[in-house]
Amino acid sequence: MTVDEGRRITITAIAQEAGVSVPTVSRVLNGRNDVAPQTRERVEELLRRHGYRRRATRSRAGASLIDLVFNDLDSPWAVEIIRGVEDVAHAAGVGTVVSAIHRRSTSTRQWLQNLRTRATDGVILVTSELAPPLHTELRRLNVPMVLVDPAGVPSLDIPTIGATNWAGGLRATEHLIALGHRQIGFIAGPPRLLCSRARLDGYRAALEAAELPLRSEYVVPGDFYHDSGFGGAAALLALDDRPTAIFASSDQMALGAYEALRQRGLRVPDDVSVIGFDDLPEVRWSSPPLTTVRQPLAEMGLLAARTVLRLAQGEPLDTPRVELATELVVRDSCAPLRG
Amino acid sequence: MTVDEGRRITITAIAQEAGVSVPTVSRVLNGRNDVAPQTRERVEELLRRHGYRRRATRSRAGASLIDLVFNDLDSPWAVEIIRGVEDVAHAAGVGTVVSAIHRRSTSTRQWLQNLRTRATDGVILVTSELAPPLHTELRRLNVPMVLVDPAGVPSLDIPTIGATNWAGGLRATEHLIALGHRQIGFIAGPPRLLCSRARLDGYRAALEAAELPLRSEYVVPGDFYHDSGFGGAAALLALDDRPTAIFASSDQMALGAYEALRQRGLRVPDDVSVIGFDDLPEVRWSSPPLTTVRQPLAEMGLLAARTVLRLAQGEPLDTPRVELATELVVRDSCAPLRG
Repeated sequence: MTVDEGRRITITAIAQEAGVSVPTVSRVLNGRNDVAPQTRERVEELLRRHGYRRRATRSRAGASLIDLVFNDLDSPWAVEIIRGVEDVAHAAGVGTVVSAIHRRSTSTRQWLQNLRTRATDGVILVTSELAPPLHTELRRLNVPMVLVDPAGVPSLDIPTIGATNWAGGLRATEHLIALGHRQIGFIAGPPRLLCSRARLDGYRAALEAAELPLRSEYVVPGDFYHDSGFGGAAALLALDDRPTAIFASSDQMALGAYEALRQRGLRVPDDVSVIGFDDLPEVRWSSPPLTTVRQPLAEMGLLAARTVLRLAQGEPLDTPRVELATELVVRDSCAPLRG
Repeated sequence: MTVDEGRRITITAIAQEAGVSVPTVSRVLNGRNDVAPQTRERVEELLRRHGYRRRATRSRAGASLIDLVFNDLDSPWAVEIIRGVEDVAHAAGVGTVVSAIHRRSTSTRQWLQNLRTRATDGVILVTSELAPPLHTELRRLNVPMVLVDPAGVPSLDIPTIGATNWAGGLRATEHLIALGHRQIGFIAGPPRLLCSRARLDGYRAALEAAELPLRSEYVVPGDFYHDSGFGGAAALLALDDRPTAIFASSDQMALGAYEALRQRGLRVPDDVSVIGFDDLPEVRWSSPPLTTVRQPLAEMGLLAARTVLRLAQGEPLDTPRVELATELVVRDSCAPLRG
């Protein structure tokens, strides 16, 4: 924000003027759905009038663009993150260029060339595994960069937006324990990803806190995709002393577990409770609707866009890594243990 | 294509050089998944070397951009279409700017202003209902425009890419009839959309061809969203002479029907067969996996991108409206009628 625009407006001032609470203004800024449309309009109008969201690009002339880059666009995450980034960029008068690099080196070279030509203002990378050559090339372009990282990549010396995977794993397991379950299976993600390990550790911590034994046969491997959830659940259900609840550490694996249960004539949640992780849009429409741990993907996109626009302005960041809170979303796939 | 680049390379020539069939080259061009990775690489390499996909932007200098515009990014269609557009644009060295106009007039004005500033080369609109003011404003910008139209909007004098909705409705119903079903319920889409009417007419045509009666109580209203599928299926299941199969004319409504069945203790497909329409990525992971009619959304995006790049080159179009073929995708949600 330039000085001639006067004092910086605060969220508190916006809230007062709109006659709403500060958390409500935050919810609007974070693009959440749980705000009444009229309230949203009013708050957005005030944010616009006071230039709250536009300051990032005020000082720039011409067409501003940010690049949002995925490995592949078939990730179920993609559209949620695009939504968050586009929302901020749109309000700032900045275009969001969406690309997929398809993990192919020829494609990556082409993409880097395009990026150079269009003089992007900043790059948001969304990836669970960033290929080192790409990382090096991007640094050479000397363009502001932020990593949105639902998977928990180890530090790459660029600012990173993640989610609290350990806390989410803990919360999901606590929920099952609170329903009376003592035999809780866990379908893990790829061990090379930090987020997989964090979710597993959250599961373990909840069992320990409840003084329940950690049974190694109840932890089965997976890769976050549907098939491995199907296979992992099948392995758990084949145990003599099978679990009464399954925590699949991704939504896709939870849906795979649904199918493994269905094929055995078992019902969710009557026979086995299932809980997921991610809260992809489609799990609202699974049958039964899936109880899961929400990763705030759209909010991660929002924050990434705001961060990259700040960097493009030359503003300093408060912290190089931010983890947004995960939260439990209770639907119909978990039931109390039957006595 | 400019003359100094020599004769235009044909798909046939590419196929010969790659040692594959012409349909295989088409599949690569259409971004389909059923091509072996090595074959795809080889074909793409040849396409690149011969400049097949890039000719659209050869004559342009500087950073090329196309704008891909949705009403909202929470549509389940969005990511499939983005994938198709990005694939073509990426190969042509063109950036894909993704926006949502959120159906709000302030947002639309902002977006039009951004569009003017960044001097886009072409606009792809994805919408089931295009607000007339937007349409007028866009024409004023005098920018090439294509409408991707999964819903069948009546002609708006801009080139349109659609899908064969009537044929899809026919095919789905024929599939159920071939399995022995005689009592087939239909959950309709919004009657104001042409695609809804085309799917319903396809259903009717299949019944007529099989000399089955069209029972008005078997056709229930819906709006393509999950809730209306749930409600529509509930209405059908409450009939004294309830259907043995349900054709939900969108995938989301089919998943709503799943939930209505589950809540009544009925199983898909053992008790009632269910078929959908769209083939959204997530229905592969429904339980049971959904039999449905595929709308080639990614291909529609591909074709839209190619069309808008042609228009940006000043090339004429062969036809102002193209409908891509729908196809039946058989999974596990339909079973033969039990005698």
